[in-house]
Amino acid sequence: PDNIGRSVIYLSQQAHHSIAKAIRIAGLGECRVRYVPLDKRYRIVAAVLEKQVRQDKKSGLNPFLVVASAGTTDTGAVDPLHEIGKITAKHKLWYHIDAAYGGFFVLTKEGKKKLKGIERSDSLSIDPHKGLFLPYGLGAVLVKDGSKLRASHYYTAHYLQDAPEQSEELSPAELSPELTKHFRGMRLWLPLKLHGLKPFRACLEEKLLLAKYFHAEVQKLGFECEIEPELSVVVYRYVPKKGDANIFNKKLLEEVVADGRVFISSTMLKGKFTLRFACLSFRTHLKTVDTLLNVLKEKVRKIEKG
Amino acid sequence: PDNIGRSVIYLSQQAHHSIAKAIRIAGLGECRVRYVPLDKRYRIVAAVLEKQVRQDKKSGLNPFLVVASAGTTDTGAVDPLHEIGKITAKHKLWYHIDAAYGGFFVLTKEGKKKLKGIERSDSLSIDPHKGLFLPYGLGAVLVKDGSKLRASHYYTAHYLQDAPEQSEELSPAELSPELTKHFRGMRLWLPLKLHGLKPFRACLEEKLLLAKYFHAEVQKLGFECEIEPELSVVVYRYVPKKGDANIFNKKLLEEVVADGRVFISSTMLKGKFTLRFACLSFRTHLKTVDTLLNVLKEKVRKIEKG
Repeated sequence: PDNIGRSVIYLSQQAHHSIAKAIRIAGLGECRVRYVPLDKRYRIVAAVLEKQVRQDKKSGLNPFLVVASAGTTDTGAVDPLHEIGKITAKHKLWYHIDAAYGGFFVLTKEGKKKLKGIERSDSLSIDPHKGLFLPYGLGAVLVKDGSKLRASHYYTAHYLQDAPEQSEELSPAELSPELTKHFRGMRLWLPLKLHGLKPFRACLEEKLLLAKYFHAEVQKLGFECEIEPELSVVVYRYVPKKGDANIFNKKLLEEVVADGRVFISSTMLKGKFTLRFACLSFRTHLKTVDTLLNVLKEKVRKIEKG
Repeated sequence: PDNIGRSVIYLSQQAHHSIAKAIRIAGLGECRVRYVPLDKRYRIVAAVLEKQVRQDKKSGLNPFLVVASAGTTDTGAVDPLHEIGKITAKHKLWYHIDAAYGGFFVLTKEGKKKLKGIERSDSLSIDPHKGLFLPYGLGAVLVKDGSKLRASHYYTAHYLQDAPEQSEELSPAELSPELTKHFRGMRLWLPLKLHGLKPFRACLEEKLLLAKYFHAEVQKLGFECEIEPELSVVVYRYVPKKGDANIFNKKLLEEVVADGRVFISSTMLKGKFTLRFACLSFRTHLKTVDTLLNVLKEKVRKIEKG
């Protein structure tokens, strides 16, 4: 327990809240958490991360974990996975990448480039219900070194003595918290087996193209886009000639959602109420995006008229 | 973290290994664990538990958690739930009852008596895939005070600002580790809705009767039963006229399993290799139990002949 208070975790302020939740559940709530400064596109600055790790080591602390994102929720930002991987390797830190939203873009040519370095992670969280368009209940953590998982989760007991002897195939019960579980894997295996990767790849490519298209078109309507989309999330906001922009955009969101033709979401970026176009539903096609553009145009006019 | 090393958890040595696993996962691995002595029927002795709690408090330690079992895996033993509940209430300890195996016997008249005090628990684990004969994936923890769960698991984030305002109905995401999940509840709700409780109760009563029947009949075949069955687990072993009883019973188990007509399991009790009749499958009826008795008779004779 002494060591826990001296142990350091490095996070982006844009990390998903499930990371903080997991840290707490794992009993690591007393660790020090450093929020690494971000660049203009909300990505971890690798050089600063390394400086912090060096300083903490000098101070006698115990840096042990870096969490990067392969696509943040707010803006779809991809941290510099390759550079961070070099740092974690050099300093022997556990490297977790949250790829829940963006990981499956690795199947596309463009995504593969952007996610370079994802293979350096020690553990990787993925959500096939997002990037593979499959049913809920498939969220998973992939861990490179299975023996470490086994060391964490293996137990035995007298009443288990009739279970088959340890074979080369590891039992899921020895690699995860659960003992008895239902057969979740079918939902992942069957669609891939039936359809192959091709349609999934095409669908992911479509989402990237739609994000680019929306990013270009929404600006033509007078919206401001702070950053280029990296994957399929576009953040945008309208800056009205007069009045509070935050109030305007909040009202705009409410109008769009109440209209019901499309659903959009929002976030706060540096205190600015910002709209989010997060395109990762298999049902979202060009037609839907054009509808959204029309609805936005309509509602801006309506609010401006007052 | 200082407090963790001074905190005390009280367990039965017969507690399921998932308890130790959960303690480790929750970051409580550095807590002190006291194994409370058991009576002849492998149940926690409440008076000794209280004595230990008092002593630990006197020593400046922090007793905070007692785990009892409403049916242990090895022998189906039910700890004195009511008496332990009085102790945890008096000393303000969290009272967890592992009712995964035996909890649903509360639906029967006999089980209700035996499980008296189960309602005193702060948290209760149940496995409807065991005692309700339903599909896998329904294991749950019931917690009496929902606000404590919410305090543990509630988080918010900018990107969640469009979620509906806090209503009277709590969201599962705020009460458990998971955010997105599939709809597991259907598997529990639909069978209960379709059939009502009656057939489930009848099925549980059948299991209790079968355990009593097996307990009586297996002794007529010359098997030794160390303890009376409390729920639907019966432990038994054959004591051969000559030779090592452990080797004999291990061999007997192998013969029965290899035969294939019935499946039995085993455990170690005080160094004795002991056979387990654990009756909780909806497919196990009188006919199966009679088959088991016949197979046992046959195999004992075969091994004795050499």
